[in-house]
Order: sequence, then structure tokens, then C-alpha cells
Amino acid sequence: MSLVVVGSVALDSVETPSERRDDILGGSAVYFAYAASFFSKVHLVGAVGEDWPGEHTTLLDRRGIDTAGLQVVRGGKTFRWRGRYLPNMNDRETLDVQLNVLDTFQPQLPEALRRCEFLFLANGTPVLQQQVLAQVTGPRLVVADTMDLWIRTQHAELMKLFKKIDGLVMNDAEARLLTGDENLVRAGHAIRALGPKFVVIKKGEHGAMFFSEHETYVLPAFPTSEVVDPTGAGDSFAGGMMGYLAAQGNFEPRTLKEALAYGILVASYNVEDFSLERLKSIERADLDRRMQAYRKMLSF
Amino acid sequence: MSLVVVGSVALDSVETPSERRDDILGGSAVYFAYAASFFSKVHLVGAVGEDWPGEHTTLLDRRGIDTAGLQVVRGGKTFRWRGRYLPNMNDRETLDVQLNVLDTFQPQLPEALRRCEFLFLANGTPVLQQQVLAQVTGPRLVVADTMDLWIRTQHAELMKLFKKIDGLVMNDAEARLLTGDENLVRAGHAIRALGPKFVVIKKGEHGAMFFSEHETYVLPAFPTSEVVDPTGAGDSFAGGMMGYLAAQGNFEPRTLKEALAYGILVASYNVEDFSLERLKSIERADLDRRMQAYRKMLSF
Repeated sequence: MSLVVVGSVALDSVETPSERRDDILGGSAVYFAYAASFFSKVHLVGAVGEDWPGEHTTLLDRRGIDTAGLQVVRGGKTFRWRGRYLPNMNDRETLDVQLNVLDTFQPQLPEALRRCEFLFLANGTPVLQQQVLAQVTGPRLVVADTMDLWIRTQHAELMKLFKKIDGLVMNDAEARLLTGDENLVRAGHAIRALGPKFVVIKKGEHGAMFFSEHETYVLPAFPTSEVVDPTGAGDSFAGGMMGYLAAQGNFEPRTLKEALAYGILVASYNVEDFSLERLKSIERADLDRRMQAYRKMLSF
Repeated sequence: MSLVVVGSVALDSVETPSERRDDILGGSAVYFAYAASFFSKVHLVGAVGEDWPGEHTTLLDRRGIDTAGLQVVRGGKTFRWRGRYLPNMNDRETLDVQLNVLDTFQPQLPEALRRCEFLFLANGTPVLQQQVLAQVTGPRLVVADTMDLWIRTQHAELMKLFKKIDGLVMNDAEARLLTGDENLVRAGHAIRALGPKFVVIKKGEHGAMFFSEHETYVLPAFPTSEVVDPTGAGDSFAGGMMGYLAAQGNFEPRTLKEALAYGILVASYNVEDFSLERLKSIERADLDRRMQAYRKMLSF
């Protein structure tokens, strides 16, 4: 089942209380695609500049990720993000953002991807997300991410987007900001009432919550003592979830819950090192082993 | 299996963003005992003043809670706590504390309780907790709670206490304060290394984590949209947990996990109204029904 992600491809500079990395491979579409690739073929659509190290594309290609939709903008520079994590390793401050090629990026899906069945609209302006959506014919499942900035500045467009998507993924702070409700159970259902058939609220170290018409549940994060860099946790979560759904070819309630669990587990590996370092060191079998431990943890 | 709780009995005044109640029934021993009473006989040891409304004792008596150890101090006044919850309903500020009879309270266990098998030392000075412990002969399971104030001001005594107990229950902020580690998995095991055979870290709306030599797990809170008053959530959690353990008469790993789950569910009811109001309106069968839903939520 074809899975497409449209989102950012970035060079990140990350400071944690104990370490620092400059210009490392990042971006929502990259984390998503790599996470999804444990389960399914995935097509990445994004843009980079001429400064983009070819080795990163090679890495994704070797992984079986289709990078035909990764446009190299002539004369352009790659999107850069610099951030610093607070000691709790959950909150972070953005120190610098250079949009570069993303400033004018108008994603054009290659013809072959316009009939994709599973589409993930990673964080981007809701206008751009709708433009991408308009290029797709008859997708079976469209899921979007968003961020606080668009909730604050592009509310009307976000509301339009919500009416066109099947699923929405956002974090707890964004859900509270959007609804003005501190209670995440009420917030989740309130957001669902804005359009999406299901809503997933990511809670970082506390796991994720799922809301549909008939279901409300929460799954905890996999307890890990090694949190080195949380960057990309949310996107690798979404990638694991969507990759599993695409592989199963359905989104029945049971499959959705398994997908949420796989998303949580991919994210639990992702945070154990910078960039894709930890994910590069594991295989699907590692995820399945952790899944076994996770299921055992939750059964009694 | 006999279960004893030693702790505070209070008249609380609680402000939430939308409501306020004055001089309502509260205190760690009260919440604990009521929660435990869904599962097991429980003996309450504490002190109140002459201003104590007899109806509260009647309520506990009718519930089958043994209040023979509830001492009414002549000429004394009951412990009072006044607090206000922030809009997130998780953080709170203490506005006023009047220790009153607790200032000089030296718990004396009635002779019949000195051979109790299960003992819960609710929050109190670690010196006092050790004095209570010294009165007990051959208990099978001793679990203690503590608070940030003792971590800050009575560290040495707390360390002595930790070496004498089987289990320790504390919240996430306290675990981080005690260890200086923001990562709760590392913090939990670090605290276990200080003495207790097992440690439970309560995370409020995010559930609870369990640490023993061979086990690390987290169970989420039961998702509820009705959080009216979180006061007593931690104590009712502990009461549900210990009540279930006492009823089962063992603390095998499997029983401990079930006990943790029951603790989470009693607490999920407790927060749905002020004081004991919600717990007074439910029966064991309601807990078992919620347990069924909880198990279903966690299986996939």
C-alpha cells in the first residue's frame, strides 16, 4: 500500500544539557520516512538546497525510501533548525530557524504518487497542506500534523484542513492551546468534533492518547532510561504508526491501536541517540522484541 | 490480612478554578482507608481535635473501617489544610496549613494492631514514621509515602527510613527532587538502591511507574474527562493498591501489578468529585467494571 509523506528535510543543530551536535540530518519527513520504512515502502516529498550532503540521500535510498520527490533547489540552501533542550529533556527552545528553500517550497507530487493510498502531511502551513491534499486522488487515509504557530496565526485555514483529513496528530500543549481545555480527554474529543475522524495526542515521555467516535484510550511511553535527543520523536512516532497501517492495508480499530503502539516503540528508540543514529542501528526484529516486552508490561 | 494506615486526618479547604469547598473531610489516612475498604478491612490510626464532626467517624465506621485508633485530642483542633489548584488541575499551591493536633501527635498503635501484616506509613516526618514502624512486630509488607519537605529538611532520617521499608510511594516531582535526575526510569531505580524493595512513582494524570529489582513498568491513568478535585488522588491510589494486596494476601509481581492498576482506578474515581463524594457513590463492582475497560484499553 503506497505511503507518501510531505514535510521538511532539515539540517538540525541540537543542544542537550550534556551534548551538542551541529548540522545533523533531521526534518519531519526524514524522521517519518525512516520510521515508516521499518514497516512499509515510503515515498518522501520535500526540498533541500545545494548544500545538502548527498550522503543523506544515499542513506535514505539504501533504506529503500523513495527519494524521487526530494527536490534539490538550485541556488538554494537547506532548511536549518537550531534548538536547545531544557534539563527535563521534554521542553525545548528554538534558538534559530532558517527557512531557506522551505520559504518558497510548493510541493508538487510526482504523477506516480498522486494515487497514493496513505498520505501523511507533516507539519507545514495548513494552506500548503491543503495544496498537497488537492493533488491526491482518492487516498484511503490522510493524516496531518500541525504546530502551535499555525494554531495561533492560521486558525481559519487549519479549520478548513481539519474538515478534509481522516486523522490528526498533535502534541498535548498544542491540543490545550487549540481548545483552551487543560483536560486532554475533553480536548481530544473537542478536536475530533472539528473534523478529523480520529485524533492522536502525543504526550512525549507519557505516551499517546487516541480519540475516535467510539474509542478513547491512552498508551504509555516505553520506559527508557536513555533519552539522548528527543528531536524527531513525534515524527518517528507518526512514521511508525502510518508505516504499520500502510503495511496492514487497513485502519480498523485494532490495527490503529497496534499502529499507535508501534509508533510509540519507534519513537522510544529514536530518542536514544541524535538524529537517526539509533534507528540506523536497529532492525524490525528489535521493534518486535520491544513490542513483546511492551505487551507484557501492559498485561496483568 | 490486617492492614493498618497511620497518617493525617484533616479538614481541607479546596479551591479549584471553578469551585470551592471549605472544611471538607480529608487527610492521607482518610483517603487511604476509604480506598482500601473496597478490598479489605483496614484500621485507621490518627488524631483529630474536639472540633471533629462526629459524622465523619460515623461515615468511616459504617464503611467497616476500624477507627479505634483515631484519637480525639482533648482541647485540640483538627489538622487543617487549605490549597488551590492551578488551571491544569495538577499543580497546586498550599495557602495555609494549621498542624494543630498533628504538631504533637505521637501515634500509639493499639495493642491489637502491633501484629498487623500490612502497614502503610502515610506522609509524615520520617522520624515519626520510624517510631510507628518500631511498634510493629513482624509485618509482612511496609510501604511508606513521603513529601518534598522531608526530602529537603530531613534527608538523613529519610535515608534511615528507606532501609527499613519494603515499598515506597512518591510522586514524580519528589523523585526528581530526591535524585536530581529528570529521567524517571533512572530516578526510580536510584531510589530503589537506597533501600526499598520496590518504588512506585505516581505521575498524576499520566499514571504510575513501578520499579523492583527485576521489573520496570508504567501503567497509564484511566482517561477521565471529569477532574473535579485531585486532592487525595495519591492516597486513594495507595489505599487501593495496599487494600488489594492485603485482600490477596501476597505481593507476587503479578499481584503487585494488579494492585497498582486498582490503585489507579480508585484514584480515577476519587478525582471526579470533592472529598470522598465520588468514592461514596461507587461500589466494588464499579471498580471491577472500570478494570475491565482498563484491561481492554491496554490490550491489542
